[in-house]
Amino acid sequence: MCGTVVSNLKSRNLTGVKLLLVQLVDAEGNLLPTYEVAGDTVGAGINEWVLITRGSAARKETGQENRPVDAMVVGIIDTVTVASGMLYSKKDVERMY
Amino acid sequence: MCGTVVSNLKSRNLTGVKLLLVQLVDAEGNLLPTYEVAGDTVGAGINEWVLITRGSAARKETGQENRPVDAMVVGIIDTVTVASGMLYSKKDVERMY
Amino acid sequence: MCGTVVSNLKSRNLTGVKLLLVQLVDAEGNLLPTYEVAGDTVGAGINEWVLITRGSAARKETGQENRPVDAMVVGIIDTVTVASGMLYSKKDVERMY
Amino acid sequence: MCGTVVSNLKSRNLTGVKLLLVQLVDAEGNLLPTYEVAGDTVGAGINEWVLITRGSAARKETGQENRPVDAMVVGIIDTVTVASGMLYSKKDVERMY
Amino acid sequence: MCGTVVSNLKSRNLTGVKLLLVQLVDAEGNLLPTYEVAGDTVGAGINEWVLITRGSAARKETGQENRPVDAMVVGIIDTVTVASGMLYSKKDVERMY
Repeated sequence: MCGTVVSNLKSRNLTGVKLLLVQLVDAEGNLLPTYEVAGDTVGAGINEWVLITRGSAARKETGQENRPVDAMVVGIIDTVTVASGMLYSKKDVERMY
Repeated sequence: MCGTVVSNLKSRNLTGVKLLLVQLVDAEGNLLPTYEVAGDTVGAGINEWVLITRGSAARKETGQENRPVDAMVVGIIDTVTVASGMLYSKKDVERMY
Repeated sequence: MCGTVVSNLKSRNLTGVKLLLVQLVDAEGNLLPTYEVAGDTVGAGINEWVLITRGSAARKETGQENRPVDAMVVGIIDTVTVASGMLYSKKDVERMY
Repeated sequence: MCGTVVSNLKSRNLTGVKLLLVQLVDAEGNLLPTYEVAGDTVGAGINEWVLITRGSAARKETGQENRPVDAMVVGIIDTVTVASGMLYSKKDVERMY
Repeated sequence: MCGTVVSNLKSRNLTGVKLLLVQLVDAEGNLLPTYEVAGDTVGAGINEWVLITRGSAARKETGQENRPVDAMVVGIIDTVTVASGMLYSKKDVERMY
């Protein structure tokens, strides 16, 4: 998650949805030049890795059923583990700052 | 948002939907060679940055439930902010004209 | 719209759906090497520019609710207009023939 | 259609669905290096051109409503015709063997 | 299937969903540099080939209806067979270890 988007003139059903700018990462954690806008339900912060769900799944949260959103941040990632070890750890990244 | 599309012979459920031609931008605000057609619910104007929602989300607005549309402009963007500062500001862009 | 597709052995719910072969165009109207098959609800003809809707939107027309189709031609485009002028006009194209 | 996929340990709602490996073709009928897995409702055979429907449309067939499938073969293509003539004919292809 | 993803701060409806990191393969079985996160309903293990279903199909399993997930592992692949023979066999791969 890397930024926020503000829109005042918008669909009434979007009122109250916090919109995030999200940048994709590859499997090594490198930032990709691909961005998208997603709603937020978990309070994600800058530089955190997040889970995004797209399509009708974005409206499965209680209270989001009628939102005209097609992407939603539904989780903050703590760890990503592969066969060779830990690929990402939120704690380790935060220790770097 | 960069243009409009007019269709007279069309599905009855499309009657009354204003169709916009929208051009995508990258994270630096450069125009990309990718366009799409989307319905409009907010009265977007030429050169404004807009929020598009795709898929079934496009029909979540009141009165749009039965429209055969798969993309809808649901907001006009005022600002896009990232860690290093403001990436886009509608006001600043308008001041340039 | 550039061709038609015929299938006799098919899902019962597809019976009576006219299937078109559609070729995509870029913003300058050049034909792209990308094709798709879509149902037709408007009687589109060869060389006409058409509006396609994808996903669940393709089944929003009356009588199409149970069709196993994921793309539908829902309009014939008359004009596409951008800030610098008219990009496409069905009438002008027809005058060329 | 170019192959089959077998899965024994699977979601209960997938039981009884025949899974095909499908290879995409371009407009000249050349095989593309893009494959996908789709369910089968029409009994497609090796080398036949098929119609695939994706997304929620894949579950529109009677009895498929609760299948966790996102792509389904819903027709076997007999002919594809464009302005300049017939692009594909199932009969002609079969005569070649 | 190549890894797992853990998220503690997440949408309530995601509670109890095991999240997998899945790497795509091409038709020759080579690993592609494309990954995605999907829920698991079948207990997939490292290096197993799996069936993924996307979109609303991901919520067709009993008990998954309200999950904000857009991709779900719904089967472990045993074999993939094409005209020229067997492309993949879970048993043969396991014999290699």
